[in-house]
Amino acid sequence: MRNEGLGSWPARRARKTPHRTALIHNGTTYTYADLHDRMTRLAHALRAQGVRRGDRVAYLGPNHPSYLETLFAAGTLGAVFVPLNTRLSTAELAYQIADSGAKTLLHTGDGEQARTLSVPVTIEAEGAGYEDLLASAPSSDPVDEAVGGDDVCLIMYTSGTTGRPKGAMLTHANLTWNAINVLVDHDLIADEVALVSAPLFHTAGLNMLTLPVLLKGGTCVLVDAFDPAGTFALMEQYGITFMFGVPTMFDLLTRQPAWPTADLSSLRLLTCGGAPVPPPLIAAYQERGLTFLQGYGMTEAAPGTLFLDAEHAVSKAGSAGVPHFFSDVQVVGPDLTPVAADETGEVVVRGPHVMPGYWGLPSETEAAFSDGWFRTGDAARVDADGYVTIVDRFKDMIISGGENVYPAEIEAALLAHPDVAECAVIGVPDEKWGEVPRAIVVPREGTAPPAESLLASLSGRLAKYKIPKSLLLVEELPRTASGKLIKSRLRTTYGPDEQDSGKQ
Amino acid sequence: MRNEGLGSWPARRARKTPHRTALIHNGTTYTYADLHDRMTRLAHALRAQGVRRGDRVAYLGPNHPSYLETLFAAGTLGAVFVPLNTRLSTAELAYQIADSGAKTLLHTGDGEQARTLSVPVTIEAEGAGYEDLLASAPSSDPVDEAVGGDDVCLIMYTSGTTGRPKGAMLTHANLTWNAINVLVDHDLIADEVALVSAPLFHTAGLNMLTLPVLLKGGTCVLVDAFDPAGTFALMEQYGITFMFGVPTMFDLLTRQPAWPTADLSSLRLLTCGGAPVPPPLIAAYQERGLTFLQGYGMTEAAPGTLFLDAEHAVSKAGSAGVPHFFSDVQVVGPDLTPVAADETGEVVVRGPHVMPGYWGLPSETEAAFSDGWFRTGDAARVDADGYVTIVDRFKDMIISGGENVYPAEIEAALLAHPDVAECAVIGVPDEKWGEVPRAIVVPREGTAPPAESLLASLSGRLAKYKIPKSLLLVEELPRTASGKLIKSRLRTTYGPDEQDSGKQ
Repeated sequence: MRNEGLGSWPARRARKTPHRTALIHNGTTYTYADLHDRMTRLAHALRAQGVRRGDRVAYLGPNHPSYLETLFAAGTLGAVFVPLNTRLSTAELAYQIADSGAKTLLHTGDGEQARTLSVPVTIEAEGAGYEDLLASAPSSDPVDEAVGGDDVCLIMYTSGTTGRPKGAMLTHANLTWNAINVLVDHDLIADEVALVSAPLFHTAGLNMLTLPVLLKGGTCVLVDAFDPAGTFALMEQYGITFMFGVPTMFDLLTRQPAWPTADLSSLRLLTCGGAPVPPPLIAAYQERGLTFLQGYGMTEAAPGTLFLDAEHAVSKAGSAGVPHFFSDVQVVGPDLTPVAADETGEVVVRGPHVMPGYWGLPSETEAAFSDGWFRTGDAARVDADGYVTIVDRFKDMIISGGENVYPAEIEAALLAHPDVAECAVIGVPDEKWGEVPRAIVVPREGTAPPAESLLASLSGRLAKYKIPKSLLLVEELPRTASGKLIKSRLRTTYGPDEQDSGKQ
Repeated sequence: MRNEGLGSWPARRARKTPHRTALIHNGTTYTYADLHDRMTRLAHALRAQGVRRGDRVAYLGPNHPSYLETLFAAGTLGAVFVPLNTRLSTAELAYQIADSGAKTLLHTGDGEQARTLSVPVTIEAEGAGYEDLLASAPSSDPVDEAVGGDDVCLIMYTSGTTGRPKGAMLTHANLTWNAINVLVDHDLIADEVALVSAPLFHTAGLNMLTLPVLLKGGTCVLVDAFDPAGTFALMEQYGITFMFGVPTMFDLLTRQPAWPTADLSSLRLLTCGGAPVPPPLIAAYQERGLTFLQGYGMTEAAPGTLFLDAEHAVSKAGSAGVPHFFSDVQVVGPDLTPVAADETGEVVVRGPHVMPGYWGLPSETEAAFSDGWFRTGDAARVDADGYVTIVDRFKDMIISGGENVYPAEIEAALLAHPDVAECAVIGVPDEKWGEVPRAIVVPREGTAPPAESLLASLSGRLAKYKIPKSLLLVEELPRTASGKLIKSRLRTTYGPDEQDSGKQ
């Protein structure tokens, strides 16, 4: 049977590099032959439990070899993998299980939470029970199921800062092309040793790091959670060459007491996503001979979309870069034609890595695409060299006196103030201007900056219409389980009804 | 317009690395921005000459930037590129032009031969005329033509040791997937500097070397013809990191007076195709710290099919390796099921890199495929680790007394004799055995080995039924323009009618 999907990857690697190390987890090493044998046995065990082509198989747990074994096993059966975010509440998990229609759930840990989710079949995915399941699998022969590139490989829920989360369907071809784009844009080698401390249930940890390294035949060191203090020891122990993280993770490393003396000599590739890397962070790593590769993407695009290479990390700091090789990206106006250089438009993306649509949501899918382009909803500008800078989410845009105001720009300016730890900007109604920006600020611990002085610090740095007309000091900002700001809740809590006339 | 084809590659690279060097030829350097601008202008010039989607555009000349410019320009128009082998006779070229139906021919040199080929439009592809053509092109804007991965990108004629050459149609997707397989199996980096001394009109020089390097954004140094003495100077001048050749080329380098002192320090990757690398040659390069990557492929598979990595160059010497990542290869019996380990069967291949068929030859295409697998016609064995050793062409197999005899095995044994420069083995009719092997040998210059002693050297090395019953000493063997042995002519010249009873 022809298998063009991810489920065939362990077999394809095992015929080339059976004895090389694919995974390391808690000191246990799995070769590619091991990975191939284990995922094949798991596939037969799942099939024995009734899992068939198209069925959804959910997984709940932090980074673990069984996550990848389940992904590949489901793939080889033509079944659909549904990774769940461990940080979600039981109600949120229950929604995703019900929405996806998963009848099988693999989980690590004691399974207490899993049992509350009323999935017909729950399977322990670590420990003796799991090892027994694999050892007693009905077969270890290749699975005889034809899988094509356009078959859906996984459903990954977008974190949904507004409304219900939507399940992005990603095909085997989508994930494969994203890994290929990583191979073109990163100089990955077969001897790569990657530190996988970003969660595999997020698209970046899986697709920008783990799958490309497995495609090349390298080694992935899986850790349950990012531990800044322990990271240096892992680097030395395993000779980590490649690491992915969000800027906060890389920033935390520089704040460790061990930072000045840590041995970073094995590191070759640092890739960073989620937000542009701030220039001081770029400088801190450059002093250690390391440069960031930066990316912009989204779950729906599997996810790599824009890429800023090491050569341009400084000269184009703040930009998200240019499109990955096998991707087409445009910044367009409402008529879908590209806007002029330095004008703001919406980022749209097209390519073999872009999802066919949202699971069970035909009208949302239709709304998400125009003329074959996926509409990201992100506002951006393109410079004369084609480098794209993400400005903000379009739906967060404030229109004040006819001017477009992007909260992200104001937030960046506020964050430059030493007393600002976190901040967010929303629009509130205004009789004169229609809408005006309002800032909500979490002060850095131990400081109590007056609102007036924070606002005054923006004078001369931002146009007058962009300077918030009010500023609230709060203790924390509402965020999703994955750390994304929930702007809708900000608007409810700190919007028009809040009496704030005296606070500016 | 969406362009998923090779024609979009220069634009995709130019948006990433416009100022990096794509090509160097005779001391002239072309950046990716140059390549993009030039191929776009050429596309508009070709369109102005009437070239439309699906039209065939032929190219005749040694390695030159205009070869690649024409390939990409044709690709961006949805036209089909037809590279011609400069070593062919005028009659052979005329056949390929007529068969492909090319109405446009680009050529380098004085065009004397091109003019005899009666193509409606001939275009000089170097010098002032060509530069004028590009400079005066009607436009340098992106070409507005939709091109899909399944559109035919080029027709490459197989050298045809029997019968007429057949035009293998290779789609944009075929060539792209082959380049991806190279990226997975070779540790290519963006700073690669490749020496392209193998001809671009052959599949290996184009697809195993040039296109993967351009995909990564590296530099290709194009030279007209392989010059063993001049190669070391090029390595030093350009810091060559990557080179492809047939074993003869690498052997010739070791025979240069400069070999012992040549600076090879920039070299990282040596890839070798066409035949397994003999162990002494492996050893000679290993002494210099270099290991061969070896491949087996064919024009119809764009071409990479089997791959022997550096780690196994010695332990699996003589083998062609295991399948490339995105390729499926089996060695099968007449019923198309895989043969047991160490049994001989036919190599069949399937994957996104395999051609859809031969141009204008539906019945030959049908005969070339069984159940979706391309039948290579090559006989091979697979060992217990899955490593494939090519034994011979099936149609060259001799059946002697019911035993299968593979000429290539006998030829390899004869070549081990110090006085044998070249040799070939054919089958001749025999009253007792049905068929028996006959050897035709070109002695090494300055030697005159008796036939008896050459045959005696095989005793104990080959089973008795494999030892030729006759051996002829000749001055040269009949070869095609590309150096392939023409076994059919050998059979006519040295077959049953030749009186040779007294020669053994």
